[in-house]
Amino acid sequence: MSFPRVGVIGAGQLARMMAVPANDLGIHFSVFAAIPHDSAAQTSPYVLGDYTNVSEVLAFAANCDVITFEHELVPQSIIKELEKSGKKVYPRAESFIYSQDKLVMREKMAELNLPNPAWQRYDGGASKIAFPLVAKVPSGGYDGRGVYVIDSQSELDELHRTINRTLLLEAKLNFDYEISVMVARSPHEQAATWPATLTVQADGICTQTITPIPEISEELAISVQSAALKIAQAINLVGVMAVEIFIVGDNFVINELALRPHNSGHWTIEGSRTSQFEQHLRAILDLPLGSTEMVAPIAVMGNVLGGEKADMYRPYLHLMARTPALKFHQYGKEVKPGRKIGHVTMTGEDLLELRTEVSHAVDYMSGVIDE
Amino acid sequence: MSFPRVGVIGAGQLARMMAVPANDLGIHFSVFAAIPHDSAAQTSPYVLGDYTNVSEVLAFAANCDVITFEHELVPQSIIKELEKSGKKVYPRAESFIYSQDKLVMREKMAELNLPNPAWQRYDGGASKIAFPLVAKVPSGGYDGRGVYVIDSQSELDELHRTINRTLLLEAKLNFDYEISVMVARSPHEQAATWPATLTVQADGICTQTITPIPEISEELAISVQSAALKIAQAINLVGVMAVEIFIVGDNFVINELALRPHNSGHWTIEGSRTSQFEQHLRAILDLPLGSTEMVAPIAVMGNVLGGEKADMYRPYLHLMARTPALKFHQYGKEVKPGRKIGHVTMTGEDLLELRTEVSHAVDYMSGVIDE
Repeated sequence: MSFPRVGVIGAGQLARMMAVPANDLGIHFSVFAAIPHDSAAQTSPYVLGDYTNVSEVLAFAANCDVITFEHELVPQSIIKELEKSGKKVYPRAESFIYSQDKLVMREKMAELNLPNPAWQRYDGGASKIAFPLVAKVPSGGYDGRGVYVIDSQSELDELHRTINRTLLLEAKLNFDYEISVMVARSPHEQAATWPATLTVQADGICTQTITPIPEISEELAISVQSAALKIAQAINLVGVMAVEIFIVGDNFVINELALRPHNSGHWTIEGSRTSQFEQHLRAILDLPLGSTEMVAPIAVMGNVLGGEKADMYRPYLHLMARTPALKFHQYGKEVKPGRKIGHVTMTGEDLLELRTEVSHAVDYMSGVIDE
Repeated sequence: MSFPRVGVIGAGQLARMMAVPANDLGIHFSVFAAIPHDSAAQTSPYVLGDYTNVSEVLAFAANCDVITFEHELVPQSIIKELEKSGKKVYPRAESFIYSQDKLVMREKMAELNLPNPAWQRYDGGASKIAFPLVAKVPSGGYDGRGVYVIDSQSELDELHRTINRTLLLEAKLNFDYEISVMVARSPHEQAATWPATLTVQADGICTQTITPIPEISEELAISVQSAALKIAQAINLVGVMAVEIFIVGDNFVINELALRPHNSGHWTIEGSRTSQFEQHLRAILDLPLGSTEMVAPIAVMGNVLGGEKADMYRPYLHLMARTPALKFHQYGKEVKPGRKIGHVTMTGEDLLELRTEVSHAVDYMSGVIDE
């Protein structure tokens, strides 16, 4: 037994942030990247290749003890080939499917008696769901891509003709807010959740998270954590998972699953004893999980979206002077409008102050405000 | 203006830990290493070379915007050549000398009316300091190397013959305990200290730190922070510095200066809003300094010293299960008896619990205890 070698398929910011606890724990860490300029390839050893090419993935995996993923696009066939080769691969193919195929996920939630919106598998014909409804391409989409709000049967017919694939139709919920519960589980079946997080959305993209959720009832907060633990066990999760949830009054409805570290868990880097990235590593290595206790009363995270400014360094002069407690995370990505290029986090006791400073910082960095 | 390139002369664990905030801030970071297996070269881009070879150092520096150091052994001549080349080099040669030459440091403390022990420059002859005394080689030693407790004139004569260099003689203080104050200062002359830290010593090596110092008077705690700020200004510091101090009753005596991130500041990674490593980067880049507020009432750090066990991974199975809040930092160094190969930190409210868990962890990792 000695320090294991972890390989991550994908080299975006999630892999980049996973490298930090890997190095702290002494774990050998490398990423499978598309290009040398990929976010995590800038800061960790990498192998270049195509994650849809089985021989390239197997060659990368040959030098690793455990393989994991940082996005949902790795084909099931590739994951199964890795498993067949005898390699430890977490999450397992049988679990990962629930973050890859929204139809399979809906069926599982129904089987578990967890709250789904009204939904149906759609291959054409008259919708059983009332309009307006949400039509989703079951796999391949994220951050609002592949998700359509449909107002009428004719619009649905049009979409189905254009997409030419089986769709998932869901009732368009008039929800109060969206939340996320991060949960981790190990092969030894140890599991842990963090407090649920409010995910403030704009145009289908999360702009800010607040943890814990202000004014949520204790009962509801416990219910969603219990649901996350139940799902983790039912799908035989190994690693971390985000359970995205709609809150409607006193009830909750499962939205989506993401079996990887997730934007809604970035607050854990500063806000919890164990970050989602460290916990993911502990889980896939079958180490005892870390404490998910918060280290501050409140943690607020804001996503920095690319705007007019190309230079993300100069804003430090103003922002660090204004808010000495603000923590910056740059992903090393070229600035493009609307692209997630980094995030900032602040922890403390005063929700209004935290939200104000985080909002100010992301607006200043993206050029929405000048001072 | 865009993300700057920082180069560190030296590739030990201090550079390794500095890479984390560098990556978070988007700063391009590389290290000048002796061998590829150096601690920081394992986790960051590196250039191999000899830090006493001016042309190799200048070639490394050519691709950096700012150069800094992680050990005191870089010769003054090299630092001055870098400065002559027009490169930004922090700390400056004029400041760095105070962590390189203990005689120059003593003279400066005297000039600043800061408390020295009785001391003298010694080139042979009768000592003016009463025995037992401490004889120090003014430059080149650390962690107790180059420091000798001398009981008599004949012993001193013998040492002087053997060493054959000017020595610094200091009164051997009957101090109560040893502390350290970390301070940071930028070219804009912004300065900040963290709360002073108790450094628990064994055989001249720090084994544990406790922050803040239990039972220190508020007056004394403020006095030592003020002294650190005064020194930082007087020596024109840029970067972070550890001021090592002896406490004797209600008074303090300056022991040594280290112009770099320091073992006594490792607790800041989990225990403060801004770690010493991030603060060092902010300072040398002339960015506004971060908040030095603690994020927990108490932070305890324990150094993991190499012992009988060669495997530092297997201990995780026991330690992570026993103490889920413990944070590990491995330096990627081969285990050798007595060598600092990592550290652990725990933050919280209960000093006894924190000390117990940290001591248990380091004793378990070094093989002193089995369970």
